[in-house]
Amino acid sequence: MIVVGVVGPFATLPQIFKLYVSHSQHAPGQSLTTWALYALLSVLWFIYGILEKKSAIWLGNGISGILNFLMVVGILLQAGLTF
Amino acid sequence: MIVVGVVGPFATLPQIFKLYVSHSQHAPGQSLTTWALYALLSVLWFIYGILEKKSAIWLGNGISGILNFLMVVGILLQAGLTF
Repeated sequence: MIVVGVVGPFATLPQIFKLYVSHSQHAPGQSLTTWALYALLSVLWFIYGILEKKSAIWLGNGISGILNFLMVVGILLQAGLTF
Repeated sequence: MIVVGVVGPFATLPQIFKLYVSHSQHAPGQSLTTWALYALLSVLWFIYGILEKKSAIWLGNGISGILNFLMVVGILLQAGLTF
């Protein structure tokens, strides 16, 4: 499962590409609430993984945290404040 | 962390609302790849949680799996095949 935990976060890359590059005009369809909560939860799981010394958890959620934060920034830049 | 694991999946609800109800015209901006991988990974974590008898993992990922699958269906219905 460590492979799933580390590879998983990269599933977000096509969504980031669509938001920033190919489909920026559809940014208002992205939910700022969803991605902000995803980012926050990644940080909580990252901290939990560090405390419990579970690399599959902290590494995967560390990467997810960065990518989810990029989604939040992209939505704010392209669509402004939305729900 | 069981609360985070179970509450977390509901972060996806605003995104589902935007896709199906309020911002359907922006469905092409959603990444089918991202949500299909999220759905697949949720199923893998759900099975892992069942095998390891970790309720925070199987319950949270079971709910996530259903919601991510709803995103996949919504994208296919509103935007057709996309990346």
